[in-house]
Amino acid sequence: MNFISDNAYGAAPEILAALARVNSGTASGYGTDKASKHVTEQLCELFEREVAAFPVATGTAANSLTLATLTPHYGAIFCHEGAHIYSDECGAPEFFSGGAKLVPLAAQHGKLTPEVLRQALSNFYRGDVHQVQPMTISITQATERGTVYTPGEVGAIGEFAKAERLLLHMDGARFANAIASLGCKPADITWRAGVDAMSFGLTKNGAVAAECVVFFDRARLADFEFRRKRGGHLFSKMRFFSAQIEAMLEDGLWLRLASHANSMAQQLSRELAKLPGFSLEDPTEANEIFVRLPNQSIADALKAAGARFYVWGPMRDKPVVRLVCSFATSESDVNAFLAACRRAVEVKA
Amino acid sequence: MNFISDNAYGAAPEILAALARVNSGTASGYGTDKASKHVTEQLCELFEREVAAFPVATGTAANSLTLATLTPHYGAIFCHEGAHIYSDECGAPEFFSGGAKLVPLAAQHGKLTPEVLRQALSNFYRGDVHQVQPMTISITQATERGTVYTPGEVGAIGEFAKAERLLLHMDGARFANAIASLGCKPADITWRAGVDAMSFGLTKNGAVAAECVVFFDRARLADFEFRRKRGGHLFSKMRFFSAQIEAMLEDGLWLRLASHANSMAQQLSRELAKLPGFSLEDPTEANEIFVRLPNQSIADALKAAGARFYVWGPMRDKPVVRLVCSFATSESDVNAFLAACRRAVEVKA
Amino acid sequence: MNFISDNAYGAAPEILAALARVNSGTASGYGTDKASKHVTEQLCELFEREVAAFPVATGTAANSLTLATLTPHYGAIFCHEGAHIYSDECGAPEFFSGGAKLVPLAAQHGKLTPEVLRQALSNFYRGDVHQVQPMTISITQATERGTVYTPGEVGAIGEFAKAERLLLHMDGARFANAIASLGCKPADITWRAGVDAMSFGLTKNGAVAAECVVFFDRARLADFEFRRKRGGHLFSKMRFFSAQIEAMLEDGLWLRLASHANSMAQQLSRELAKLPGFSLEDPTEANEIFVRLPNQSIADALKAAGARFYVWGPMRDKPVVRLVCSFATSESDVNAFLAACRRAVEVKA
Amino acid sequence: MNFISDNAYGAAPEILAALARVNSGTASGYGTDKASKHVTEQLCELFEREVAAFPVATGTAANSLTLATLTPHYGAIFCHEGAHIYSDECGAPEFFSGGAKLVPLAAQHGKLTPEVLRQALSNFYRGDVHQVQPMTISITQATERGTVYTPGEVGAIGEFAKAERLLLHMDGARFANAIASLGCKPADITWRAGVDAMSFGLTKNGAVAAECVVFFDRARLADFEFRRKRGGHLFSKMRFFSAQIEAMLEDGLWLRLASHANSMAQQLSRELAKLPGFSLEDPTEANEIFVRLPNQSIADALKAAGARFYVWGPMRDKPVVRLVCSFATSESDVNAFLAACRRAVEVKA
Repeated sequence: MNFISDNAYGAAPEILAALARVNSGTASGYGTDKASKHVTEQLCELFEREVAAFPVATGTAANSLTLATLTPHYGAIFCHEGAHIYSDECGAPEFFSGGAKLVPLAAQHGKLTPEVLRQALSNFYRGDVHQVQPMTISITQATERGTVYTPGEVGAIGEFAKAERLLLHMDGARFANAIASLGCKPADITWRAGVDAMSFGLTKNGAVAAECVVFFDRARLADFEFRRKRGGHLFSKMRFFSAQIEAMLEDGLWLRLASHANSMAQQLSRELAKLPGFSLEDPTEANEIFVRLPNQSIADALKAAGARFYVWGPMRDKPVVRLVCSFATSESDVNAFLAACRRAVEVKA
Repeated sequence: MNFISDNAYGAAPEILAALARVNSGTASGYGTDKASKHVTEQLCELFEREVAAFPVATGTAANSLTLATLTPHYGAIFCHEGAHIYSDECGAPEFFSGGAKLVPLAAQHGKLTPEVLRQALSNFYRGDVHQVQPMTISITQATERGTVYTPGEVGAIGEFAKAERLLLHMDGARFANAIASLGCKPADITWRAGVDAMSFGLTKNGAVAAECVVFFDRARLADFEFRRKRGGHLFSKMRFFSAQIEAMLEDGLWLRLASHANSMAQQLSRELAKLPGFSLEDPTEANEIFVRLPNQSIADALKAAGARFYVWGPMRDKPVVRLVCSFATSESDVNAFLAACRRAVEVKA
Repeated sequence: MNFISDNAYGAAPEILAALARVNSGTASGYGTDKASKHVTEQLCELFEREVAAFPVATGTAANSLTLATLTPHYGAIFCHEGAHIYSDECGAPEFFSGGAKLVPLAAQHGKLTPEVLRQALSNFYRGDVHQVQPMTISITQATERGTVYTPGEVGAIGEFAKAERLLLHMDGARFANAIASLGCKPADITWRAGVDAMSFGLTKNGAVAAECVVFFDRARLADFEFRRKRGGHLFSKMRFFSAQIEAMLEDGLWLRLASHANSMAQQLSRELAKLPGFSLEDPTEANEIFVRLPNQSIADALKAAGARFYVWGPMRDKPVVRLVCSFATSESDVNAFLAACRRAVEVKA
Repeated sequence: MNFISDNAYGAAPEILAALARVNSGTASGYGTDKASKHVTEQLCELFEREVAAFPVATGTAANSLTLATLTPHYGAIFCHEGAHIYSDECGAPEFFSGGAKLVPLAAQHGKLTPEVLRQALSNFYRGDVHQVQPMTISITQATERGTVYTPGEVGAIGEFAKAERLLLHMDGARFANAIASLGCKPADITWRAGVDAMSFGLTKNGAVAAECVVFFDRARLADFEFRRKRGGHLFSKMRFFSAQIEAMLEDGLWLRLASHANSMAQQLSRELAKLPGFSLEDPTEANEIFVRLPNQSIADALKAAGARFYVWGPMRDKPVVRLVCSFATSESDVNAFLAACRRAVEVKA
């Protein structure tokens, strides 16, 4: 009953098979191999346009390198106050950008809106050297609260960004879960909606370690490739990273894995909501559930029963716990967790 | 009628006289001259303890070099959301620290409190490498809202800092105004209250360009002197900067100048508060006044009458203007401004 | 006939097997898993002392994170002018350290000596804020010229470092080749010889992507773990990186693989030296050969025959080529290359 | 007899007079005042073209901010191994640029040549992400060895830079001495010769603290103004810095002061060269003399006689001393030093 994170699980068997497949003979290094080139072709097809794609091995690297490429050192990056880039990367975007400022914004269910952004922007004067300058918006898809931006919602932010001459970055650590949830085309929620560059995450979705930075316009690439090298994120045996992405994109593996995770989360969420005193903090739209428990003793009982999960954020009177389902979460784990919940509720009553 | 900033005025005549006084013969450079040594002696006496003192030429340099010395690159600095270091230095503390994070906090009248800090701290887990680590608190004395921390208030923050193993920095851009207002000993509001290092500002108070970084404990100095040089803030002809500080500290010039500014602000504030529809946003405790005008046409009329001032922050229904009095603000300017206000009110009525 | 780099080859089968082995069930992330803990135990045993060990995925990351931890932003790092950290990492050590200075030194066969270092050091004044301050020496073992420092040679540099209060870093991208060549204990060429921290490279030696940063004294760790996270080099599914190191250290795989590479290089080098007009630029002590060809047409003929290798450095009258043997280089490739050389010589004659 | 540095002397009386002159009434801050605007006009006239000009207070700031503006973080800056930016600014250019690499080049008499640069450039491959990329050349005028580049020499480097798509920076800490020595138009040795941006130094030439960054093409300005603010180098009371430059450029004061310094150096150099066993290391073309003394006891005798100067670089068998004449060096000091030399020689003999 491990719901602590989608990265608590290992890799899908197809991923390990892909590593074995590319491990024959010699290959040219640093991304000039066949698998790496194929990944770009796959992504061009997936996104229905020419893109530039760069595999890296962590989400922190993907986000930070991209944000630093989009944002000058004196720039401001607007993001949700709960964004992973703001709270969980130890200041990596600040480090890579040479000290740009992340501006944390409060907004419901982890989702920024044009209104929230407009309000934030009203504190800045363009061209005033005494202030950091608005440059970039970063949104997370699916969000850190398990919700998903619709194409319309991203599009509204994209229009706002364009009108205000800001660039739009998407942290897609759980992009697969979002697409599996929406059922839309990847293009509709990214470049067609105004996204300039993104981190296409696959590690949480069952890769060993593979995220892909995608630029939708080569004009935005700027010094990205030098940054990647200087950051120590250019792999000599790149084929082993590209092969993971290649396998994921081959005949829809990435969506099959994400759909499973989402479906487990749906099942779990639906049943939890029925329990007395349990309430969902956010709608469950991807593979994460935020549920408020009736009291602390329930949380203790679940842990005692062997369930693993995070108690989220600063403590309030009632504990909110985060439950994450992964590509490998089993239905029996979901059922076991629900059973433990019911037992705990009964004991309490 | 210039109330736009205390740095709109030039230098006090005593300061220029001091520059002329040290301009004879040769002197050793980079802070090894007589005036520079004397400044340290003066500050040791003023603060009733041994201190290390380093003149620089801007408040941005003073604050940023000090914060970068106190705070590692992966550290968090807690400050008021209206703090100059957060909003008006174009990210200089982030630049000098290699990307530390300034955490903006809302609090009344520009003053942090242990409660506000405790709440902020509850979002951080010590030792968790995924998060920036709480390291430093920065308070501004007098604050950016024209208020002044009492020794007790600073002391409470100092105790909190000590209990939480945080360092305490004071941005003293208007330190003279605070001391002139409180009438207390400088020691009581700094190291005795838990402050580890400060920017002792003199430029706004009538110097040409002179701020003094003061460390109350040499153990905190760390790499400050290398940072200052690498930042381009070590002057070859240092005596000209030290001489300004020397003159300020000589027979209380700094307090006389600040008292004048405060007194002008008091006079102005008292009368403004009596005008119909005018209301003070913050108590006037130093040399800055934040006053809400009854309507925009009053602000326009004042500008038309030749008054200069800032309309503060994001626009609301009624304009809030900031009025700053300086060491050189004259009583006749204060009276002229009040007269213009009264005329504008009458016209409106 | 691929002699272009030891990273042109994929991974040893034992490494892929290890990935499969750790891929079962859930594991705690970010280095708290069993395999990661085991790696530290293995390294403590290998080095005959307590060490702190941190897997990362590239040599650039390993070197830069370590150098930045050992060296303050105002420090100087002394290295060979041909060092990988100086010439081939796009300034990554400068980036990670916040702008420390790498001082390039000329020295025969890629090896620094106390004499060369003493001369370099004589240009610096300790404590003078106008200069970067000598802090760290970095040596590469085996060197970038295919030579190997003896324990005595490292020891002499270690003593010099200690006497001059400098720290000693070892770039061990080909550490396995050095140990296989020397036949000494790893401890004798590292901490017993004065090395403070090292990059223990395994990627070139047949891993997918695995280098291990080793600190021989936890007191030197400083902020390394925060740097790693901020640099995007902390893996959520760390077990897949640790497992590679674990497998390498299990029953001497790392030395078997390196011995093979060295042996191929020896064989190739010995025969090349016998060819008319061929001369070795450096002794072949590990898995790299630097050989001067009699003329350019030989180089062309070899390339035409399908051999892959680098022509090294700036062109001179006669081409110097670098040939690298790997864990997977076959005897038939060596023989084929030699045959091609002989044919080219005959044609020319 | 102070020949230790041109910054050992204070300020010319005209400079202090200028400070007093601008100290009346209020002025708008941060460079929008009248004196600051006038400085730009003066420099446009002096350089016979439109320029962008930014006063700062130290040479380190001027050089570092400019180099960081011209050079991306992954760039290489080619400079003389004795350049102030390489040896005497504690790595400030590395700090401001986010870790760009300064490549030190050996060349006679402190002067780079196209040949030396071409050789250096041959070690770099353009577009190779594994290497820092050649971006900028920095030359010092007058050089750190007291020599002066002719317009033809700068022009040759300028042409080389253009052909190689490099930018050309001039550290003009002693630009006045160079122009006074050459008698040419400032334009001929700067933008007409290919210089893109420069530090126009006035502190050593008799200002309190004033250097002016000059960009000859606004297209190169990029983010300079944000860098200046973030670096803490934007002065609120800018008029006091601009006024120094204004006074220097008013009716040729800068050249009169520099001519005096040069003339004192010429006189001193000419006579020293006649002394038995004394030999000039470099031609004396500006205000610095590098002279090799016959033995150490002469140096000791001079110091005992009260002369102040630096013994230069790493010790060799015979001491080389640097003697700097300033705008305020008196003929009697020159004569006193020569007399002391003659006495020391006689005693020795």
